[in-house]
Amino acid sequence: MMRKILVIGAGKSTSYLLDYLLGKSDTEKVQITIGDIHPKAVPQRIAEHHNCTVVDLDIFKDNERSKAIADSDIVISMLPARFHIKVAEDCLIHKKHLVTASYVSPELLALDTEVKKNELVFMNEIGLDPGVDHMSAMQVIDRIHDKGGKIVLFESFCGGLVAPENDNNLWNYKFTWNPRNVVLAGQGGTAKFIQEGTYKYIPYHRLFRRTEFFDVEGYGRFEGYANRDSLNYRAAYGLQDALTIYRGTMRRVGFSKAWNMFIQLGVTDDTYTIENSENMSYREFINLFLPYSPTDSVELKLRYYLKIDQDDIRWDKLMELKLFDDSKKIGIPNATPAQALQKILEDSWTLKDDEKDMIVMYHKFGYELHGEKKQIDSKLVVIGENQTHTAMAKTVGLPVAIAAIKILNQQITTPGVQIPISKEVYQPILKELETYGINFKEYDVPYLGYNPNSVIS
Amino acid sequence: MMRKILVIGAGKSTSYLLDYLLGKSDTEKVQITIGDIHPKAVPQRIAEHHNCTVVDLDIFKDNERSKAIADSDIVISMLPARFHIKVAEDCLIHKKHLVTASYVSPELLALDTEVKKNELVFMNEIGLDPGVDHMSAMQVIDRIHDKGGKIVLFESFCGGLVAPENDNNLWNYKFTWNPRNVVLAGQGGTAKFIQEGTYKYIPYHRLFRRTEFFDVEGYGRFEGYANRDSLNYRAAYGLQDALTIYRGTMRRVGFSKAWNMFIQLGVTDDTYTIENSENMSYREFINLFLPYSPTDSVELKLRYYLKIDQDDIRWDKLMELKLFDDSKKIGIPNATPAQALQKILEDSWTLKDDEKDMIVMYHKFGYELHGEKKQIDSKLVVIGENQTHTAMAKTVGLPVAIAAIKILNQQITTPGVQIPISKEVYQPILKELETYGINFKEYDVPYLGYNPNSVIS
Repeated sequence: MMRKILVIGAGKSTSYLLDYLLGKSDTEKVQITIGDIHPKAVPQRIAEHHNCTVVDLDIFKDNERSKAIADSDIVISMLPARFHIKVAEDCLIHKKHLVTASYVSPELLALDTEVKKNELVFMNEIGLDPGVDHMSAMQVIDRIHDKGGKIVLFESFCGGLVAPENDNNLWNYKFTWNPRNVVLAGQGGTAKFIQEGTYKYIPYHRLFRRTEFFDVEGYGRFEGYANRDSLNYRAAYGLQDALTIYRGTMRRVGFSKAWNMFIQLGVTDDTYTIENSENMSYREFINLFLPYSPTDSVELKLRYYLKIDQDDIRWDKLMELKLFDDSKKIGIPNATPAQALQKILEDSWTLKDDEKDMIVMYHKFGYELHGEKKQIDSKLVVIGENQTHTAMAKTVGLPVAIAAIKILNQQITTPGVQIPISKEVYQPILKELETYGINFKEYDVPYLGYNPNSVIS
Repeated sequence: MMRKILVIGAGKSTSYLLDYLLGKSDTEKVQITIGDIHPKAVPQRIAEHHNCTVVDLDIFKDNERSKAIADSDIVISMLPARFHIKVAEDCLIHKKHLVTASYVSPELLALDTEVKKNELVFMNEIGLDPGVDHMSAMQVIDRIHDKGGKIVLFESFCGGLVAPENDNNLWNYKFTWNPRNVVLAGQGGTAKFIQEGTYKYIPYHRLFRRTEFFDVEGYGRFEGYANRDSLNYRAAYGLQDALTIYRGTMRRVGFSKAWNMFIQLGVTDDTYTIENSENMSYREFINLFLPYSPTDSVELKLRYYLKIDQDDIRWDKLMELKLFDDSKKIGIPNATPAQALQKILEDSWTLKDDEKDMIVMYHKFGYELHGEKKQIDSKLVVIGENQTHTAMAKTVGLPVAIAAIKILNQQITTPGVQIPISKEVYQPILKELETYGINFKEYDVPYLGYNPNSVIS
């Protein structure tokens, strides 16, 4: 008998997810229903598969949503995170499992007792970051703990970048995911973490100046800046004793120092709108953030304001973006500075059809075992195939798809609203991900503790 | 027959206000009732005056509040701004005039139609800033307009500082008003103004580096940084055509550049609390915001982080605050960084009993008259007498008190929820303020436009 999987939301991150499910649909005996508000946008190769049905589904229509969920065995929600709760409530009513790649919201967590009572699995944060990061970190942490070791340091960094063969601009960066999130990165609160037992706080306007370097064999050097709250998973990961816990985002070296120019200018602000933004030129936009002068050029005022020397490559990075162009227009009415900046960056940082993306993840585990201090570095690189089959879609979509099948097959059974940090979940999923080229390389390295030489400020 | 004035809230800013009203009480035939939640805190010299009654008044007790208001002819509310609305609603019910020194809230403004219908005067923003600034600016603006001139530039700055004779620390600053407001100054949004017809935006982390200098005859040089929204009163002042509108806060030269160190560190943040703040030393507190090092001192890390050279006076300013002291404790549980910083600053910046404060205000009016460009600079300095009779209490309290009497005497009659920008209001009040030593000096100066040389960045 065929089992039914309902996939709600078929955006561009679902290419691998749907390919995987449809590819396994005959052997696993599953029927896929894709419910989307734009059913025509689903690619033909998927829509016409013999085990696939595409339906028009507006999740704000309670009847439609409830009926579709009632008619499935498990639901995968790829909607924006804030919409999961409606789907989750229906899953509970109709006693269906649920899988999402999003962070567990307080509303979702509030369903935990009921979800457990009904022996349902509501699996969340099982994409890339969060997702692959949880699983790959817990695999090493559990192994160290099982041997009797004690974790003293945990650092974890992830970045969505452009593949080396298409890495051809001065910023060594192109948008491979939501550009808005890149422009707003680091906003919304001071970054907080612990280093060698001491709490550390970095305000937004210093965040991109407190980076750390990483070398990845075959791919060269990267840098990382701190995420907002590194301590969120301290208890979940069993790291109460760790003296250093630091999570962050990876970029190519030099990106952060250059990005900091935008923060210093104030052009990443998303809290107010600019007057007359629609017909404003890039040059006029930048001049909004510089002192008035009856004579000096916008270029010189900016150089002086940000202390950019003649031979500073940051200047060339700005020129590459055509930041001082008087003919290019923002073209957005009532734009916030962040929206205007995003428009300028999209001119330069949009991947072309034949260009590929790259995912990099880097964990450091410092631990004590039999009185000795040791360290394991664990690294992952995934390169995309093309603009549909991106490394991002692969690393987000495959864990979701694999988890859904394993829940259906009762290989993952522990009920509750959860994230993939138990062996029952991460072991089989990581094993299967390896067959798709998503595999971490581990390196035993000398334990250095937190290395102050790797911090620039 | 005696008229009755109800003064609600008798905090330390009301010394001059009450002295003025009681001093005039026989000739003006007024009886003052002070309603306060701490009636015993009212000084004896005031409480025992033959025209004064002090009553226990909790404004959250609707009956008490309503009864006290019903029994008066005019109400002066010196409560914190958020409490005015309850008082205002009762004033409307019982048809009493109202005077406050606070900003007009949207809730208060919503009463305007009803207030007018009942021919009541609800006068607000009639302290120092807002208050004396409105009145003194409008006096010059109206005069220029009446002559047929056109305002092209308006800048207005005000500062509460320490009197020159007690100006004896490296920051040239002591707290003369609410310390919390000083620590949080500039937060809550990007500063916005116009310079020569162009909008300009300054983010918080650059605000204290975009200052302007001012010379005040006999008092030397000051600097000013921009307020959050300089354009709030553009329409009210009739400045729609002005190419430059800039309002700000005055400090002694060098304060802003030094204060910027705190912003750069992140210690002015009030949005999160610090772990273990109560038993934390000043030194440990500062180290929270610096990178970890197993060897380097907090001092050197801070110097390096903020690029403070050996001979930079900003270093001595930090040392003066005992910022690196390992024995001094924050002593506040769950303190935000801003609260901890306030504690540190209060150790050094609290006025002693015999020390005096100083108010400085500086307006610039650029205008065109008969095809010629001209400029008037208007300046005010007021020095406090002692810690009770401060310049701040004088410049806040006297305009409030004078307005109350003039409303009672029907010299100010135009009804509505208003601020003191009409001639009917500012002319008699400014004239009377002069007799108390609150007088502006005007200087005709060459019109320079917005002078880029006075901006450092």
